[in-house]
Amino acid sequence: MPVKFQFWYDFASPYSYLSAMRIEGLTSAAGVETEWHPFLLGPIFKSQGWDTSPFNIYEAKGRYMWRDIERLSGKYGIKFLKPSVFPRNGVLASRVALASESHEWRSRFSKLVFIANFAEDRDISNEAVIASILESLGEGPGHIIGGALSVENKGELRRATEGATSIGIFGAPSFIVGDEIFWGNDRLEDALEWYGSRMGHAGSS
Amino acid sequence: MPVKFQFWYDFASPYSYLSAMRIEGLTSAAGVETEWHPFLLGPIFKSQGWDTSPFNIYEAKGRYMWRDIERLSGKYGIKFLKPSVFPRNGVLASRVALASESHEWRSRFSKLVFIANFAEDRDISNEAVIASILESLGEGPGHIIGGALSVENKGELRRATEGATSIGIFGAPSFIVGDEIFWGNDRLEDALEWYGSRMGHAGSS
Repeated sequence: MPVKFQFWYDFASPYSYLSAMRIEGLTSAAGVETEWHPFLLGPIFKSQGWDTSPFNIYEAKGRYMWRDIERLSGKYGIKFLKPSVFPRNGVLASRVALASESHEWRSRFSKLVFIANFAEDRDISNEAVIASILESLGEGPGHIIGGALSVENKGELRRATEGATSIGIFGAPSFIVGDEIFWGNDRLEDALEWYGSRMGHAGSS
Repeated sequence: MPVKFQFWYDFASPYSYLSAMRIEGLTSAAGVETEWHPFLLGPIFKSQGWDTSPFNIYEAKGRYMWRDIERLSGKYGIKFLKPSVFPRNGVLASRVALASESHEWRSRFSKLVFIANFAEDRDISNEAVIASILESLGEGPGHIIGGALSVENKGELRRATEGATSIGIFGAPSFIVGDEIFWGNDRLEDALEWYGSRMGHAGSS
């Protein structure tokens, strides 16, 4: 089995949004299959003593980040509207994403959630917003949200977040290539280059 | 007067090292003149409640950073040897760098200090190490170090660090183009592109 290219993201993370919108253009050009792994930064931040995003705690850093995202989205041609609430609670969206084992489905759903949060300023913690996204994918939302909120599936998100921590992930987005972690939207190209030069051959033999 | 491209750095910062070794190749290709601005991250970190580098405080982040620097220095072809002490005290080196108003001189001196710290694991807080760097530049070290330690010049470093904070700088390296801050070695190319498209014309008229 070839090693897969892993994309770890949090729905509240602005840089994860940029990567979610860019990754398929880059991976499909390179013929790379991607696993989509939503997880929660909140518990990881909490273990570092932070009760909210560091972009809220450290003012100069936060001010910089919003300007940086504005510049980068312009450079990439990605629509961006600063969310009126930050960080938005991504628990429900993450549970719905994890309710399917299909990474292709997760990618379609996740991009719409990111767009709702970072291009349309919609409240992704609201069940009606998630339901409307599911409907636009042609899904019956009631059944999927019910499954996403089941006890078993709640465990999935907890395990995903614990899995992220045990790999050594401390921020989002992160890209995993074998034992290597690449952190940040600005490492996406490096991660793919690493994958292509070290992992691509294993898969093609 | 055309706006200058500003490079703000801290001698203890690994990503500042990478930028210091890369910047002249990129700016000379673009015909851009660079101002070299050493400052101290320590007081800025202290104001955020940190008594050392966040790479020491947050273990997973620190572990990642050293691996990231190793990978990036390999990619850029820059020699790197993990310093046995981190972060090293850069006060003396910064004072010496600021004792000259010539950015060309600062760049030559600063690159040698960075190499001593990050490629040779030498103690840049040691006066003998700084003296040997000055000698290799053909300077009489006694006179320069004496001047660097003068009361007036100590004020220069304090003012540089306060200046960084007042601009909105919170990390190193940072690149300043007019009112725009670009933070991190991975933003050097973006900053130069911004400079070229917005500032270059003002200077050529």
